[in-house]
Amino acid sequence: MLLHLSTWTEVEAYLEKSTGIIMPIGSTEQHGPTGLIGTDAICAEAIAKGVGEEINAMVGPTINVGMALHHTGFPGTISLRPSTMILLIKDYVTCLAKAGFTKFFFINGHGGNIATMKAAFAETYAHLADLNIRNHEQVKCQVANWFMCGSVYKLAKELYGEQEGSHGTPSEVAVTQFVYPEAIKQGQLAEEVGKGHSIYGAIDFRKRYPDGRMGSNPALATPEHGKQFYDLAVKELSNGYLEFLNAG
Amino acid sequence: MLLHLSTWTEVEAYLEKSTGIIMPIGSTEQHGPTGLIGTDAICAEAIAKGVGEEINAMVGPTINVGMALHHTGFPGTISLRPSTMILLIKDYVTCLAKAGFTKFFFINGHGGNIATMKAAFAETYAHLADLNIRNHEQVKCQVANWFMCGSVYKLAKELYGEQEGSHGTPSEVAVTQFVYPEAIKQGQLAEEVGKGHSIYGAIDFRKRYPDGRMGSNPALATPEHGKQFYDLAVKELSNGYLEFLNAG
Amino acid sequence: MLLHLSTWTEVEAYLEKSTGIIMPIGSTEQHGPTGLIGTDAICAEAIAKGVGEEINAMVGPTINVGMALHHTGFPGTISLRPSTMILLIKDYVTCLAKAGFTKFFFINGHGGNIATMKAAFAETYAHLADLNIRNHEQVKCQVANWFMCGSVYKLAKELYGEQEGSHGTPSEVAVTQFVYPEAIKQGQLAEEVGKGHSIYGAIDFRKRYPDGRMGSNPALATPEHGKQFYDLAVKELSNGYLEFLNAG
Amino acid sequence: MLLHLSTWTEVEAYLEKSTGIIMPIGSTEQHGPTGLIGTDAICAEAIAKGVGEEINAMVGPTINVGMALHHTGFPGTISLRPSTMILLIKDYVTCLAKAGFTKFFFINGHGGNIATMKAAFAETYAHLADLNIRNHEQVKCQVANWFMCGSVYKLAKELYGEQEGSHGTPSEVAVTQFVYPEAIKQGQLAEEVGKGHSIYGAIDFRKRYPDGRMGSNPALATPEHGKQFYDLAVKELSNGYLEFLNAG
Amino acid sequence: MLLHLSTWTEVEAYLEKSTGIIMPIGSTEQHGPTGLIGTDAICAEAIAKGVGEEINAMVGPTINVGMALHHTGFPGTISLRPSTMILLIKDYVTCLAKAGFTKFFFINGHGGNIATMKAAFAETYAHLADLNIRNHEQVKCQVANWFMCGSVYKLAKELYGEQEGSHGTPSEVAVTQFVYPEAIKQGQLAEEVGKGHSIYGAIDFRKRYPDGRMGSNPALATPEHGKQFYDLAVKELSNGYLEFLNAG
Amino acid sequence: MLLHLSTWTEVEAYLEKSTGIIMPIGSTEQHGPTGLIGTDAICAEAIAKGVGEEINAMVGPTINVGMALHHTGFPGTISLRPSTMILLIKDYVTCLAKAGFTKFFFINGHGGNIATMKAAFAETYAHLADLNIRNHEQVKCQVANWFMCGSVYKLAKELYGEQEGSHGTPSEVAVTQFVYPEAIKQGQLAEEVGKGHSIYGAIDFRKRYPDGRMGSNPALATPEHGKQFYDLAVKELSNGYLEFLNAG
Repeated sequence: MLLHLSTWTEVEAYLEKSTGIIMPIGSTEQHGPTGLIGTDAICAEAIAKGVGEEINAMVGPTINVGMALHHTGFPGTISLRPSTMILLIKDYVTCLAKAGFTKFFFINGHGGNIATMKAAFAETYAHLADLNIRNHEQVKCQVANWFMCGSVYKLAKELYGEQEGSHGTPSEVAVTQFVYPEAIKQGQLAEEVGKGHSIYGAIDFRKRYPDGRMGSNPALATPEHGKQFYDLAVKELSNGYLEFLNAG
Repeated sequence: MLLHLSTWTEVEAYLEKSTGIIMPIGSTEQHGPTGLIGTDAICAEAIAKGVGEEINAMVGPTINVGMALHHTGFPGTISLRPSTMILLIKDYVTCLAKAGFTKFFFINGHGGNIATMKAAFAETYAHLADLNIRNHEQVKCQVANWFMCGSVYKLAKELYGEQEGSHGTPSEVAVTQFVYPEAIKQGQLAEEVGKGHSIYGAIDFRKRYPDGRMGSNPALATPEHGKQFYDLAVKELSNGYLEFLNAG
Repeated sequence: MLLHLSTWTEVEAYLEKSTGIIMPIGSTEQHGPTGLIGTDAICAEAIAKGVGEEINAMVGPTINVGMALHHTGFPGTISLRPSTMILLIKDYVTCLAKAGFTKFFFINGHGGNIATMKAAFAETYAHLADLNIRNHEQVKCQVANWFMCGSVYKLAKELYGEQEGSHGTPSEVAVTQFVYPEAIKQGQLAEEVGKGHSIYGAIDFRKRYPDGRMGSNPALATPEHGKQFYDLAVKELSNGYLEFLNAG
Repeated sequence: MLLHLSTWTEVEAYLEKSTGIIMPIGSTEQHGPTGLIGTDAICAEAIAKGVGEEINAMVGPTINVGMALHHTGFPGTISLRPSTMILLIKDYVTCLAKAGFTKFFFINGHGGNIATMKAAFAETYAHLADLNIRNHEQVKCQVANWFMCGSVYKLAKELYGEQEGSHGTPSEVAVTQFVYPEAIKQGQLAEEVGKGHSIYGAIDFRKRYPDGRMGSNPALATPEHGKQFYDLAVKELSNGYLEFLNAG
Repeated sequence: MLLHLSTWTEVEAYLEKSTGIIMPIGSTEQHGPTGLIGTDAICAEAIAKGVGEEINAMVGPTINVGMALHHTGFPGTISLRPSTMILLIKDYVTCLAKAGFTKFFFINGHGGNIATMKAAFAETYAHLADLNIRNHEQVKCQVANWFMCGSVYKLAKELYGEQEGSHGTPSEVAVTQFVYPEAIKQGQLAEEVGKGHSIYGAIDFRKRYPDGRMGSNPALATPEHGKQFYDLAVKELSNGYLEFLNAG
Repeated sequence: MLLHLSTWTEVEAYLEKSTGIIMPIGSTEQHGPTGLIGTDAICAEAIAKGVGEEINAMVGPTINVGMALHHTGFPGTISLRPSTMILLIKDYVTCLAKAGFTKFFFINGHGGNIATMKAAFAETYAHLADLNIRNHEQVKCQVANWFMCGSVYKLAKELYGEQEGSHGTPSEVAVTQFVYPEAIKQGQLAEEVGKGHSIYGAIDFRKRYPDGRMGSNPALATPEHGKQFYDLAVKELSNGYLEFLNAG
């Protein structure tokens, strides 16, 4: 059930049965010479829709620009500053919490979002308490990273081993190939790839990881792998959402 | 050419030929009992993609939550505060301007966004000058409201006359029916509809316009109308974009 | 009745009869080589006082610096950034709303303020609701541009036709000549004047409109014209204010 | 020379000779049952104009709303929050500094502004250095409180002794009587007046100082006194301004 | 009684008896070639602890970085911008006020903090009223500058006369020598020292006061003097705190 | 080498040899009925000093209030909001980076700080690039959590097993007992302790963890254990700092 394809009266009816909502969040950032700039948003959105269908949960609009300042040395990257992203999440959750939603399950496609999201959640809880809105003490936000699902991680290791890397990974590229087969890129990859995990500023990032990848070999990705990752993530996050709802 | 389905190397190549980009912007807000909450984002995104294809221009990710504070009395609405939206637009444009983009053509689906967008543009021009980024004095942002295209306006008058109204209109509903025929809502509309144009706070809005519509009769919408509106808007905005680019 | 020439006990008494207030807002910006930098504030203040006398309404202190970032390429211009102006208007309205005022009629002298004012009003309504102050749902803010009064516009067309232009106009210059006859400037105007309506950043503005005027010929202005404009604006806005109050 | 009654070309010419400017700053706040709400702005503006004429200096537009949060328990008071006022002063000074002004002499009419002004100056110096504008290291801002001029203080003591008090004082009321003789208020004053100097929040303030005065007897004020205070302040601050300019 | 060495249950018990708290606040800034960068924090912390022991009052954690932008031309200086410091103080006081504290006695070691602290207090009172927390109208914040205690000032004059100066003073250096005898610096001082009291931006400051001192001769300081200053300050501020508590 | 016990000339000399600095950061928050409110700051400060001595590195002033909003349901807790903490860290690092520091090693005592610190680092890198300060691209910030050192974690498991818990842990209490043996608390602990790891808002936190502990048994702590933890952390973080410096 997509919020964007619902009416307000349908939302009103939904709230009678559930106060949970799934919020997809991604990023708009370079993913190496063959990875799509929308990779993180595409993965989060597709998987969130899958989870929403699986368990009949409301899915909000995708936050498709996140915290990617370290990627801004590559053209096409768009990033919120963390301070802006905190305000954005606070605004989103506040509107929905006033309407009665209390459980916010953020299906996230970008590791770089996690810290700022957690900061935003803390800021938001305090804000809602300050506003003293109804049921504010029941509002809970959860980060659910599809790429950190145990089953996803295991499959990636099996398929790609070390070549999974940590940015522009074959697993995420595979999911985008599954979702947008018409946008599979055939670019040549350099044999050398930037190694390591350190992330500081944008200039430093581009120096360490000259073509944008972090130790990954996205040439290994296939749409079929993408389907597998998608299925695993939907299943695991569907369970995760239900546990989150039931945890009270 | 969608930014989200491009790689950073493709963006780099695009910038050799053009420094223009189309930015779709909508809203996530109630549109009456039969209008989709995502109406404004859906219309802006679809039309922006159409324009992008027509004239081979880059299309950025849709800003799908805008300034809809006055609609927050209805569940499902999500709004940025204007001050947040200014920061968001500043962050977006700054990232892209640093990469070399200079002409930002915002295809907008929501009247309530216009004031804040203009404020954001002014704030952004000054910010870019303060940062002294390359070519900052050439950065230009333009609001292009699809629903205010002359051809669209004329057709809406012909088809619906007074019943077009000003929110939850048959013309925008028609476009969503064209884009998402599977999400056409058959709800019963009250015979009475809130009249007028005044917009103040959220509580006042709901009192004036009890079911969310402003003087409109969306029951008149059809997917075929939607196609017509879509075609007109794509054509007119394609021209608009080219004029904007050429105006220097 | 000027707030600045009243005591708090007089304000208290006024609030027994009316909760409306007129807020003049202008700008401090270049108006071409013969237009006063204070033009917009001077016009708004004079007309607001006129309206206040006409209908016995409270008139607040003039906001004499507004959103004029695009004029900052000319010395003497002072501008708030839009984000600052939003905070300023929020602070003003919040103070007055807590004291019992609910209808804010902003008599505006500067087109460049409009977008930011509307953004500020939206931000303010939400803020007042968050604070949950008494009668917050009745607070209404209105922009009333004296230069867009039908009667003013008509006279400007009659007197100046195309030479009215859109910045440093003979009509606004005429009003300042009427209010401050001692400050009529006799400078020579270039024969060429920047044409068009496009407004982006400050550097671009100065390039397009080298002496600051936008298509106007302020040499046509006379103090007698100014008196006519003043009278028309006061009459039309007095009615506008009363309608606003009565609209509930 | 009032900035508001000048053209940008006159400002340009002025800057050839001087980079100093006088900025009047007051407040919009209760001044007891017989004091004008605009007292602080009226005094600062009148004296600043006097100084400007005396020494042929540019005088900017009056900041007529300042930091008066502690007075907001009385209707008619308008206050900026300190954080807003810092942004406002930063915006003002930044615009003028970019145009070439370097010496900002704030003639202040309200004790409650001083702390925030000083905070704003510090914030602004750092901001200008960050922007790296031309001559930023020469920008200097000065608070000049007319009511703390030695000569003013001495006369107030002579005329009123203890009854000068510290808010709604006969000296400031006298100046407003001199400037606006038509607005002299004849209200009856309570025999009891709140004593002390402590200032905390707005509710506490009204409890301590029930009619708004702080230990003052404004009934002693006369327009003739006002003229004397005005003359002394203009003279002393004219010297102060020249010293400030010359101090380099 | 140090907050940092207490448990929350001890704080709960303390609040039964008293709602007052002492907040030490200093700065991290150059103090001339022989003064410690931590001087202001060290003095404030030591004296606050002394006062806390003397009268059995709770002492909060030291705010050891304050408003020292004008000292940032010297390495080692760390400063909050005033706008940040306002938020910091607002956050501190809000947390403690929600827990029941109402009297905040800030023992301050740095003149440059005063203006921003006062601005912060005003902002905070209004914020607490907006939040409508219990007893918000009783919250009071006080600046208590140890170096402006009458007894301290008198001793400094006696011991050092003109050579006390106004920054990197022998009196404050003496206190740090008393508190940290192991960190007494033996550096050679230039014979020339920057004179005057003017403080503007950081570059200007360093030009006026080349080695960081303002007219002071810290070579006169001894740990024994430090003990005297400490004792006087503790005694006078202990009385000051009790008066503040009792003033209601 | 403590920044607070150094002079600016010593800092200048230090910068000739190293551009690294250690920044201790803790929190001021409840740590259960027997844990000190300053626990996290005390541990971070002590260990940071130890590391500084071990390897002759500069140690900055302790950030003793961090992000502890979820603990604010217990009296004595003070927290910055994440948005404030981001500004604070940005201000700190900016001052020091302008002076020449480039490697910031934050020794952290509080898990709740991590997310906001990482957000702050990202915000800061972008800010320094915007300011275009010298060597901005070399600035690197690192979080180093003493309690997550492998050696520390291992010892805690050995000594306490499951009873280590995750807040108010015996390991951190032990370190405070080692540092402040005079402040060892003998309070009785409830047999029941809140279990789990979930952290949302402050009210929810107190409901889940009624006495503030999260699954821990701090009664197991001894000063001797504290010494062991301290030694291990100092050793491991000394190495970590050197690796960080050398990683370039």
